[in-house]
Amino acid sequence: MAAPSEDALRRALAARKAAVDAQAEAVRALKAGGGASKADVDAAVEALKALKVEAGAAARRLQQAVGAGAGGAAREELRQAVVNTLERKLFYIPSFKIYRGVAGLYDYGPPGCRVKANVLSFWRQHFVLEENMLEVDCPCVTPEVVLKASGHVEKFTDLMVKDEKTGTCYRADHLLKDFCKEKLEKDLALPQEKADEFKRILAILDDLSAEELGAKIKEYGIVAPDTKNPLSDPYPFNLMFQTSIGPTGLSVGYMRPETAQGIFVNFKDLYYYNGQKLPFAAAQIGQAFRNEISPRQGLLRVREFTLAEIEHFVDPEDKSHPKFVDVADLEFLMFPRELQLSGESAKLMKLGEAVSKGTVNNETLGYFIGRVYLFLTSLGIDKGRLRFRQHLPNEMAHYAADCWDAEIECSYGWIECVGIADRSAYDLKAHTDKSGVPLVAHEKFSKPREVEKLVIVPSKKDLGLAFKGNQKMVLEALEAMSEKEAFEMKAELETKGETNFKVCTLGKDVVITKKMVSISMEKKLEHQRVFTPSVVEPSFGIGRIIYCLFEHSFYTRPSKSEEEQLNVFRFPPLVAPIKCTVFPLVKNQEFDDAAKVIAKALTTAGISHIIDTTAISIGRRYARTDEIGVPFAVTVDSATNVTIRERDSKEQVRVDIDEVAPVVKQLTEGQSTWTDVSAKYPAHVGPQSEQE
Amino acid sequence: MAAPSEDALRRALAARKAAVDAQAEAVRALKAGGGASKADVDAAVEALKALKVEAGAAARRLQQAVGAGAGGAAREELRQAVVNTLERKLFYIPSFKIYRGVAGLYDYGPPGCRVKANVLSFWRQHFVLEENMLEVDCPCVTPEVVLKASGHVEKFTDLMVKDEKTGTCYRADHLLKDFCKEKLEKDLALPQEKADEFKRILAILDDLSAEELGAKIKEYGIVAPDTKNPLSDPYPFNLMFQTSIGPTGLSVGYMRPETAQGIFVNFKDLYYYNGQKLPFAAAQIGQAFRNEISPRQGLLRVREFTLAEIEHFVDPEDKSHPKFVDVADLEFLMFPRELQLSGESAKLMKLGEAVSKGTVNNETLGYFIGRVYLFLTSLGIDKGRLRFRQHLPNEMAHYAADCWDAEIECSYGWIECVGIADRSAYDLKAHTDKSGVPLVAHEKFSKPREVEKLVIVPSKKDLGLAFKGNQKMVLEALEAMSEKEAFEMKAELETKGETNFKVCTLGKDVVITKKMVSISMEKKLEHQRVFTPSVVEPSFGIGRIIYCLFEHSFYTRPSKSEEEQLNVFRFPPLVAPIKCTVFPLVKNQEFDDAAKVIAKALTTAGISHIIDTTAISIGRRYARTDEIGVPFAVTVDSATNVTIRERDSKEQVRVDIDEVAPVVKQLTEGQSTWTDVSAKYPAHVGPQSEQE
Repeated sequence: MAAPSEDALRRALAARKAAVDAQAEAVRALKAGGGASKADVDAAVEALKALKVEAGAAARRLQQAVGAGAGGAAREELRQAVVNTLERKLFYIPSFKIYRGVAGLYDYGPPGCRVKANVLSFWRQHFVLEENMLEVDCPCVTPEVVLKASGHVEKFTDLMVKDEKTGTCYRADHLLKDFCKEKLEKDLALPQEKADEFKRILAILDDLSAEELGAKIKEYGIVAPDTKNPLSDPYPFNLMFQTSIGPTGLSVGYMRPETAQGIFVNFKDLYYYNGQKLPFAAAQIGQAFRNEISPRQGLLRVREFTLAEIEHFVDPEDKSHPKFVDVADLEFLMFPRELQLSGESAKLMKLGEAVSKGTVNNETLGYFIGRVYLFLTSLGIDKGRLRFRQHLPNEMAHYAADCWDAEIECSYGWIECVGIADRSAYDLKAHTDKSGVPLVAHEKFSKPREVEKLVIVPSKKDLGLAFKGNQKMVLEALEAMSEKEAFEMKAELETKGETNFKVCTLGKDVVITKKMVSISMEKKLEHQRVFTPSVVEPSFGIGRIIYCLFEHSFYTRPSKSEEEQLNVFRFPPLVAPIKCTVFPLVKNQEFDDAAKVIAKALTTAGISHIIDTTAISIGRRYARTDEIGVPFAVTVDSATNVTIRERDSKEQVRVDIDEVAPVVKQLTEGQSTWTDVSAKYPAHVGPQSEQE
Repeated sequence: MAAPSEDALRRALAARKAAVDAQAEAVRALKAGGGASKADVDAAVEALKALKVEAGAAARRLQQAVGAGAGGAAREELRQAVVNTLERKLFYIPSFKIYRGVAGLYDYGPPGCRVKANVLSFWRQHFVLEENMLEVDCPCVTPEVVLKASGHVEKFTDLMVKDEKTGTCYRADHLLKDFCKEKLEKDLALPQEKADEFKRILAILDDLSAEELGAKIKEYGIVAPDTKNPLSDPYPFNLMFQTSIGPTGLSVGYMRPETAQGIFVNFKDLYYYNGQKLPFAAAQIGQAFRNEISPRQGLLRVREFTLAEIEHFVDPEDKSHPKFVDVADLEFLMFPRELQLSGESAKLMKLGEAVSKGTVNNETLGYFIGRVYLFLTSLGIDKGRLRFRQHLPNEMAHYAADCWDAEIECSYGWIECVGIADRSAYDLKAHTDKSGVPLVAHEKFSKPREVEKLVIVPSKKDLGLAFKGNQKMVLEALEAMSEKEAFEMKAELETKGETNFKVCTLGKDVVITKKMVSISMEKKLEHQRVFTPSVVEPSFGIGRIIYCLFEHSFYTRPSKSEEEQLNVFRFPPLVAPIKCTVFPLVKNQEFDDAAKVIAKALTTAGISHIIDTTAISIGRRYARTDEIGVPFAVTVDSATNVTIRERDSKEQVRVDIDEVAPVVKQLTEGQSTWTDVSAKYPAHVGPQSEQE
């Protein structure tokens, strides 16, 4: 068995790392103290080097033992390496760290902030500008009425239990999940029957009601993990941060849980701005908030995050898309409902076929799936670890026509990073009802038309008698029926007097009798069609995409001396926080001047760069910029021509000083590849070592 | 007197505008109803045109009467015209409008959102990239401990009074201000003595304590403006939006009132990231929140806004700046303390002289003043309506070394848009004290130095006996003394036994006796200097800058038919929401194809643009893009060559189709001017009318 050996290797590595840290601290103390002799310091530095060699070897042994990408332990190892690098290089900083931080809040430090700005700028280019979307920018503070209409005040909740003595809060489903997982993993004597039960619970965890969760917690005797105290019954906790607008304390507000509502409430103005034409899309980038009960999963499950959302408004009777042909030939991993239900895995499919076969509901939805694929892979997301998963019927809101998530595989498993949903007319209708302002579109007829309209009239009285508290959900489900469904029901009611009817929001079938609903087609003369547009919503969790991108871009390679593993982020230039570094090889006026000339040309060309004149070896300086993913490094070792090094191949070419900026510009803007450049310019094989 | 006539003209204009609106509504209703005859519709349209001509004439009469930029009424008029255009073209939208909005919350609609993105992108270019600042991105949700340390929990307040019957809240200073202003403006029988008193109150309004405000409100019998009910005593209302982090309700959080604190708490990490070298700057762009008691001043005083802040950390003993020479020759309006106190106005000064004469405290502060000037004027802020005003001693925090506001004149008066403060070591010290983490910098000496250190030891006991509740403020002021001040005090105490000492935070002098404080110099051997860096903070209110930019960019000109005034925003290409529009002159395949070719070339060149194929006259289409400030319009009236029109001159040149994108690119990126282009290409004098 590999596991115990892996475990031992991991412990060994941890011990080596601790030794390296302790020795490094000792070296720092010796240097800072000012009282130690040079010999003492040198000896300590030598010892540190030796420890690093051992730690490097231990890391490689572990890496070999677990195999790249194999199993949970290797994932955990990868994540630790990535997260350590990210935090050490200030891609992220736990927010308010000097005050011990706040769970679920992170800062982007300097390189992380640039990566984020690059991702958002590309998003704007790829979606907003390319499609001429109407971008808006709405406040985070949102009055209660808006979020009542959207359903968030009522439904944006997680189920919580409290430690009955200390008041500590836990997510009820997390406790049940942890319990089942631990039993399955550690209880070797578990009877098959019990194992099956725990597996079933894990599969349906998201669907359990408060009562069902509470019953299971009682049945299994689950207690508070920290204190072993008994737990309260589960109850819903609203995940919105609540506040009060103005000084009276009477006007409740929330920090928005998504940016979409700001677009919906502006639909009327935006529709007029667009010349009363459909389809059109609005977009918004901004902060959203979610007051998690107890955040886990580090950077993936946070209390404040940046969303980029698109609401594409379209005539429900025509969801074709003129540019669908541009993406129809794309082929990537898709995971439709059928494959999930039959236990198969995601398959490579052509997008055009997925739409023509009806796997994807319509062209507009398909078009956005294709555009999202192009967006993510342009950033550097690995095609092999990206799939589009269709929502199962029980995951999808009753009003949604179809919904696909772009899921990216990382050390936490497959993570939903973009949701692409056809939400039908739900949101606009909800705000129309609540505000009294009709959020509708018009299609004028050249001459009046006689139309047949489906009229569904539920009998509130009979529904109320039959379903009591559930009446509203049954009623809404009846009204939301398509023409086809309505006429099938009508036929059944006429022949049998009653019919079974699935109400998704209740999660079960109910019996509908003839007197509960009247269904008919009526003729009318109409001058125009007034309708609520459907909305197709691609919603991007920018922080999650960036985190997955970090994992997909990260790799290690041994230093020249094999003393340690060096970290590299293979960011494409589009994403890289800095495109180019300039290193004067040694400190002298001539090289410094040349570096300044190059820097000035890079500034003029709009290439972000830094000059690093630190008095450390060139190899160390390369390693330092590899670690933040800088794709190109210019080393100034002459006043007339210099070297350009590519990060991943570590190849170097010699280029005249005045050619540096144009060459780097072409490389970073995609007009030429490194292969082109290394074919055109002489290779440099010089004294610059990769690592001291 | 001009005022009554102006008033009459304004009423006349308002009536005309109302008539135009009513008629326009009638036309829309007739068209939409579908039942009206063509003759009816045409007649209504003709009537509308006639009304518009009258309204245009009324507007011009008013404009002549008030004179451009003269007096409060003209300002009000300008503001109305700008704000109407901004709201009609969706630069702004009152947030949650369909639910009647929330005071002090606004959305940026599509063109406003692009302007904002352009301003922020230029800010990043001009400050962050140009100076290699460390940009960070911290959450809005902030735990209480951070804002206790910064002083916001205690001091970020406005004084509020409540209507004692209805509970409606008002800002106490606003009520007193309104009262004094109204008396001064409307009470013709006001005795000189009273007039002087009201003027004095207006001048010191910001300095009044709760007690003083309350006393004045009582003395003048000021009541609630809406109900005439009596008012409560004034009491402080904290302007932060409060919330609760996590589910327990025990962890208080606030929505940050500024972005700066996120940088200060990260100082230690950022200092290490920067190789433990000073000076360096960190920057942050993000949302900030201020729960105003009753927002006034429309778009300038809002409850949520975007800040862009820089914290430049510098050795307090060396505030020189290597790039100060680059800005030393700039000359602009400065308004130092002395000019304000002597009742003079702002004067043109050379920045270099202002620093060398000590008017501006130090080079670093001066450098940022210069960079801010360049930033604002590049955006299109009018140099004649921009001044840098120094804070008066009573405006400045006791710890601040110097502080200047970039003020922009708009219809609301001179508005503070950027604050540039040397905050000394205050913020880092406050967080060091509260967190216990030393936020300090080190300067290592090559060999140990004997140093003399100023040691100020206040006697808490004696201070407590003498000053009771004010003890802390006196103590802090003593500890904050400079070496010079301390030795002057020491000398006084030794000769006279006591001395007067100004405590800014108390706003008065106190008497310090010999036993209250010991002042001495002590000798020590030091290996390094450990010190708290000073921070120079330029803080930009992005929304205010954008609003002032809108006013400075706005003008009107009569349409060709003189039927109406047309609105224009003279945005520079840098700011313009769209750089170029493409108009096929009439609808035909040939022109549409040519337009597509041009659009594709513009996309490749990275120029934002739209094709407008609406079937309205070319003049109307020009007017429509002038109104959102698009600098260039391409009209396709042939398949081989087309016209390019410049917005402000309305001049047109003829250019071959394949030259359009390069010409527009050079124009928008500043490599050529319109003068260059109109010299190079033939002028177009064709059938395209400016206005139907």
